[in-house]
Amino acid sequence: MSERAYSAIPFADVRITGPFWRERLETVLKHTIPSQHEKLKEVGILDSLKLSKPVPPLTIPRNSHNFTMQVFWDSDVGKWIEAAAYALAHRRDADIEAKIDAIVDDLARAQSPDGYLNCWYNGREPEKRWTNLRDNHELYNAGHLLEGAVAYFRATGRRKLLDMMERYVDHIAATFGRGPGQKRGYCGHQEIELALVKLYRLTGDRRRLDLASYFIDERGSQPHYFTGEALARGDDPANYWAGTYEYNQSHIPVREQTRVVGHAVRAMYMASAMADLASELGDDGLKRACEALWRDVTTAQMYVTAGLGPKETNEGFTEPYDLPNETAYAETCASVALIFWAHRMLHLDLDGRYADVMELALFNGALSGLARDGAHYFYSNPLESRGQHKRWAWHLCPCCTMNVSRLVASVAGYAISARKDGVAFHFYGGFETTAILAGVKVALRESSDYPWSGEVRIDIGPEAPAAFDLKLRIPGWAKSATATVNGEPIKLAATNGYATVHRVWRKGDVVALDLNMPAERLYAHPNVRMDVGRTALRRGPLIYCVEEADNPGGPVQTLALPRSAQLNATWMTDLFGGSTILKASAKRLVPGEQGGALYSTEPPTARDAPLVALPYHLWANRTPGSMQVWVAELEG
Amino acid sequence: MSERAYSAIPFADVRITGPFWRERLETVLKHTIPSQHEKLKEVGILDSLKLSKPVPPLTIPRNSHNFTMQVFWDSDVGKWIEAAAYALAHRRDADIEAKIDAIVDDLARAQSPDGYLNCWYNGREPEKRWTNLRDNHELYNAGHLLEGAVAYFRATGRRKLLDMMERYVDHIAATFGRGPGQKRGYCGHQEIELALVKLYRLTGDRRRLDLASYFIDERGSQPHYFTGEALARGDDPANYWAGTYEYNQSHIPVREQTRVVGHAVRAMYMASAMADLASELGDDGLKRACEALWRDVTTAQMYVTAGLGPKETNEGFTEPYDLPNETAYAETCASVALIFWAHRMLHLDLDGRYADVMELALFNGALSGLARDGAHYFYSNPLESRGQHKRWAWHLCPCCTMNVSRLVASVAGYAISARKDGVAFHFYGGFETTAILAGVKVALRESSDYPWSGEVRIDIGPEAPAAFDLKLRIPGWAKSATATVNGEPIKLAATNGYATVHRVWRKGDVVALDLNMPAERLYAHPNVRMDVGRTALRRGPLIYCVEEADNPGGPVQTLALPRSAQLNATWMTDLFGGSTILKASAKRLVPGEQGGALYSTEPPTARDAPLVALPYHLWANRTPGSMQVWVAELEG
Repeated sequence: MSERAYSAIPFADVRITGPFWRERLETVLKHTIPSQHEKLKEVGILDSLKLSKPVPPLTIPRNSHNFTMQVFWDSDVGKWIEAAAYALAHRRDADIEAKIDAIVDDLARAQSPDGYLNCWYNGREPEKRWTNLRDNHELYNAGHLLEGAVAYFRATGRRKLLDMMERYVDHIAATFGRGPGQKRGYCGHQEIELALVKLYRLTGDRRRLDLASYFIDERGSQPHYFTGEALARGDDPANYWAGTYEYNQSHIPVREQTRVVGHAVRAMYMASAMADLASELGDDGLKRACEALWRDVTTAQMYVTAGLGPKETNEGFTEPYDLPNETAYAETCASVALIFWAHRMLHLDLDGRYADVMELALFNGALSGLARDGAHYFYSNPLESRGQHKRWAWHLCPCCTMNVSRLVASVAGYAISARKDGVAFHFYGGFETTAILAGVKVALRESSDYPWSGEVRIDIGPEAPAAFDLKLRIPGWAKSATATVNGEPIKLAATNGYATVHRVWRKGDVVALDLNMPAERLYAHPNVRMDVGRTALRRGPLIYCVEEADNPGGPVQTLALPRSAQLNATWMTDLFGGSTILKASAKRLVPGEQGGALYSTEPPTARDAPLVALPYHLWANRTPGSMQVWVAELEG
Repeated sequence: MSERAYSAIPFADVRITGPFWRERLETVLKHTIPSQHEKLKEVGILDSLKLSKPVPPLTIPRNSHNFTMQVFWDSDVGKWIEAAAYALAHRRDADIEAKIDAIVDDLARAQSPDGYLNCWYNGREPEKRWTNLRDNHELYNAGHLLEGAVAYFRATGRRKLLDMMERYVDHIAATFGRGPGQKRGYCGHQEIELALVKLYRLTGDRRRLDLASYFIDERGSQPHYFTGEALARGDDPANYWAGTYEYNQSHIPVREQTRVVGHAVRAMYMASAMADLASELGDDGLKRACEALWRDVTTAQMYVTAGLGPKETNEGFTEPYDLPNETAYAETCASVALIFWAHRMLHLDLDGRYADVMELALFNGALSGLARDGAHYFYSNPLESRGQHKRWAWHLCPCCTMNVSRLVASVAGYAISARKDGVAFHFYGGFETTAILAGVKVALRESSDYPWSGEVRIDIGPEAPAAFDLKLRIPGWAKSATATVNGEPIKLAATNGYATVHRVWRKGDVVALDLNMPAERLYAHPNVRMDVGRTALRRGPLIYCVEEADNPGGPVQTLALPRSAQLNATWMTDLFGGSTILKASAKRLVPGEQGGALYSTEPPTARDAPLVALPYHLWANRTPGSMQVWVAELEG
């Protein structure tokens, strides 16, 4: 399985030069990271790190399950540090670093002598630590703080937080495991597992991998840990508010799971860790489990935007093909986590199927979570609206805000992978890096106006001639693709979504790739009952939507697109800094002969009307109004 | 406005001879009424009337609003008495009467010396009576007990409960009003208003009408009663769990209301009482308010089944054209209450618009609430299912069970109205009665196989020749209608939905009416975004649905009906005791060339497949499976 040997080139080693991501990165650096710090302060999350007596009253009241979302505030801090650290890797910022250091100092004061570090428990109920792993996110918090610590160390070399977290991880490793006197627990919200793999990759300390492996494999074993834990608390396990251990994917051991169930973010974080472990341990059993889950989610449980989890009550999955549009939950975090997972799968097998989904989630379901101003968000990403959906400046549960900022700040890390004899481009958009290929240092400069254009140029600059594979992803959406090397057409055959160009590369070599990127219609499997008779529009990696701001004259749901209508892609220089929209001659349905009756034996009349479609990730940045991804289609 | 003078012929004076309602009435008599009594006993509702110390623990725990549905158990008892009394009017039953008398005895022991009667308050918190009209249904309970008392007296002549309720109403009238020392309150759940009108119509006691009138007109006045009441309890009125006084239609005075809002059953009971008062008081202002609300609900907020209220959280209305199918709340009670209202509007103006909606609700949205076995129910009546909807034998909030039984037990009361010089048939199906018309006693016998057939025969038997109007409703759905008198064709011109045949009638006269009842397609206003590209099937008063039990081979949502396909009505003798189904040559959508992909650039393939549609009210009486009212339509 030589393909496994591809590794992502870290984002810190990749410069973004293309306009699409450069502009978004700048927005995150200038607006998102600073404004998120302000919000963390404003809502009391930063103050919650300063353990004080008397303990202040709850900011977020306990709900009917006796649960307050305040228990996972540590994770928001960890995620903000991580996002900020990724930003610092692009451009150091003394002010942001001082803010992080201040947080680290607070955390240091909050840490127990034995290494335990949780501001909720240490501040409010220290005697209750590790008594409710099912609900209270202790290990999840630890995971996010650990990811923040790793990122901050990588960005700045400062290791205070990292050292604190190493001590905490030591404490966790002593507490949990299969040894005598240890708790055989794991977290109700998976997350620490993938953080531990990151720590292992930083330090090489194998114990971190073992701990992650323990958490993954212990999950769902019998007797069920959460049942015993509930009994020990004096709670009836049957009163579990989520109703089922499927909610946190602990209903059966992870290797036996073949259907994605429950809370979508939990499921995706778990699958990401499983893929990490499959890779690090060469564990084909875990890999097969990942593949089964992948098949399930991508063939039956994913929105066309790569949104995941239709249902609000469990923030997660329901059943195959159940993908309602207007009420779609499709949490931003879930699409971000799908990117994490897809990226890891791609490094198990360099297969365009994974890259296709990664790209789909990146440009659509995840990116739609961040407003163009960098300071407003969507938590849910519905595929239809009657105008009731408005972006918010913050959220009671702010998980998505920092998930989308840490994603955008590190987006360059998803573009390119390499191994000793090859380099692979997963998507395009202006990325530059340097890699050692066939023992030679090679400058690689990809330039394009992707995702708006499929014309890609790659300048290859080895310090000396070198023979290596250049692997170019030919996206699943590309109707055709052609390429030249130094102006000479080459034969381009894609295997598993990647076309390999092997030759002795010399300084000045230029590869031009032309991905045919027509606007086209998508149809859902007819079992997706909501989308029967409807079509979605796609151009390149972008899913489009019709929004009322571009289609005045009534709810966009009264627009219908004839199957024969041509879709014209048009570049709009002034629209959100430049965007390609789609135009078509469509129909507006208006009441038929019986006038405004609610029900009539006359079908509606279809009047000529223009239809304008906007990339989905750009919706809800103007006047609120109706929006729809799946447009009614007329056969004519 | 002479048409106002039409009055309904009470159900007790109308015999049902037609098979459709006769069979359903028998089911209610034999199965529904007795099994409901058993359930009331089983779940503790009957025991709750026997006030005991110590007070037993709550059967239904308080929710997060500190509210338990147990507070309105008295209403369930009242409604069961009412339904049982209607059954007794058809056939006396000593056992049922003994059961009612036992309940009345319990209620008598529970009644306070001052006339107050509420088993929740008297049993648990007597000091708190009249402190939370907004939430705790005290007057609502009184209303249902009063309706039960009136019905039981009418059926049996026994007046113990009626006398008790008269005392209670005296107490209420002394407590509430605009006089000194009186509370200016009204109920959070309208109901007592229409009960008081029934009491007035029984006793002629004008004070009952005045009290109803006070409750209606006080509603929504400022300062707002519920605000003052909350402050008096020490509650913050801003913390009202429903979020808005629109929930109970007290946001503005009722005469200013032009849009139906909030909880659907509350809205319909209120509108029914408004129509009653408009009629009794000749109050054109109230009539105009009713007409505005009617326009709103019927042109923008009603399902094609006459279901009302799309949303679960408020059990009610949202905004115009917001009519989701699978998640439709469409509570059985709301359609039953719509029948009450439509029936009252019809006696303000003999206009087929009202009769059309009354009939639609009766044969569809309301009747679907009762299973064919008479002992299972739907609370919600969605228009689409993936098979998750199953009828239940009881419900935590059993309001719908007795609402549908009291409706069916009294259905004959909705069929015919009369005034001194005319008789009007609103719908057909085998109803016989006797009326004094033009001073002459006239036997009227309508016979038909309605709703399966539009062929109606009316035998008219005056004791002496008499000149009067025979008004025949020509339903809005009838494509055409013809009639003969004694075999001779007559000219049939309908005004406001009723064709008038005026002549000197003689014994033996026979009118034959033939309503053309083809199966046909309905289309929703294109603003109903869920139904764009879809069609519903109707034949006569019946809305049809496609159910998986009749359409094996996948979810019914993958069926599509070509616009050109002929709809063939077929009588099925063995289907639920005889039913007309619709058959068509349709298409089954299966994945296109790209196989089972979730999304594809190939449209699904449409394979020939039969489509069978069943009357909506019959759905979910067999193996659970998918169901759909709005079928995808192909233009071809």
